[in-house]
Amino acid sequence: MTNQFIIKMILDAWYAKVKEADALFEKISDEQMQNEIAPGRNRGIYLLGHLTAVNDRMLPLLGLGDLMHPALGDTFISNPDKAQTQTFAVKDIRQYWKDINSKLTAQLNKVQPEEWFQRHNSVSAEDFAKEPHRNKLNIMISRTNHLSYHLGQLALLKN
Amino acid sequence: MTNQFIIKMILDAWYAKVKEADALFEKISDEQMQNEIAPGRNRGIYLLGHLTAVNDRMLPLLGLGDLMHPALGDTFISNPDKAQTQTFAVKDIRQYWKDINSKLTAQLNKVQPEEWFQRHNSVSAEDFAKEPHRNKLNIMISRTNHLSYHLGQLALLKN
Repeated sequence: MTNQFIIKMILDAWYAKVKEADALFEKISDEQMQNEIAPGRNRGIYLLGHLTAVNDRMLPLLGLGDLMHPALGDTFISNPDKAQTQTFAVKDIRQYWKDINSKLTAQLNKVQPEEWFQRHNSVSAEDFAKEPHRNKLNIMISRTNHLSYHLGQLALLKN
Repeated sequence: MTNQFIIKMILDAWYAKVKEADALFEKISDEQMQNEIAPGRNRGIYLLGHLTAVNDRMLPLLGLGDLMHPALGDTFISNPDKAQTQTFAVKDIRQYWKDINSKLTAQLNKVQPEEWFQRHNSVSAEDFAKEPHRNKLNIMISRTNHLSYHLGQLALLKN
């Protein structure tokens, strides 16, 4: 089987999950996004911001461009929910989610098959020589799983 | 890059997620497994049984053997939570989870690289000819995501 075929299987799983997220987010109102997914747990807005910030970081991580919304990481990755120093409106995060994914998709489509097996930007050349599975393609596998994990939680906010 | 290398990346993601599940289940007591993950939603025991039943079904789906616990599917796949006709004890399901994964791991390790690109047993030969991505390897990708989805929910039961 060609590498290209297997890479497509992995990317298709990512795109399917992003599409599932788009559909789910449409079923959750801005008001519901303010609710906790379970008593005392993260709010919907935090998870929405978290997923958006993580997708934004995929751009530099995969060498596909700069962060589009650098302020998101501090609030939605470095800090837990309800510790925000900066407040974001749900409707703005929804728009960032779309904009970031548009750019990400355009850039992912340009990656050549052999580039997927190169190291990503959070592993050193030295470590990569020992652990060649820490490549760009593995980021796609792990980010798809990360997205699934939080979609399972966000689904709890639906009616 | 060899097929074998990419297949290993995909299988490693599966094994890592099963290991994460093992660790999570240990942190949730039998009593906590009786709780709903969020008000009015599935109970932990249902999701534990669901994940166990889905892994069991991977055996025949991938041509790796018969179901080990055929009774699970009716309660934890075909029916929603709280509709059970049959009652299972949490400690029994925990044991099934381990036994099924042991057998599944042993069998997965025997699959030859080229076999991963053969059709799985829920797609017809005719459909597979048109959609060759519906192969056994794709089952591993989708089941890893499915497991992640429900682990995000089960994590809500931890203290």
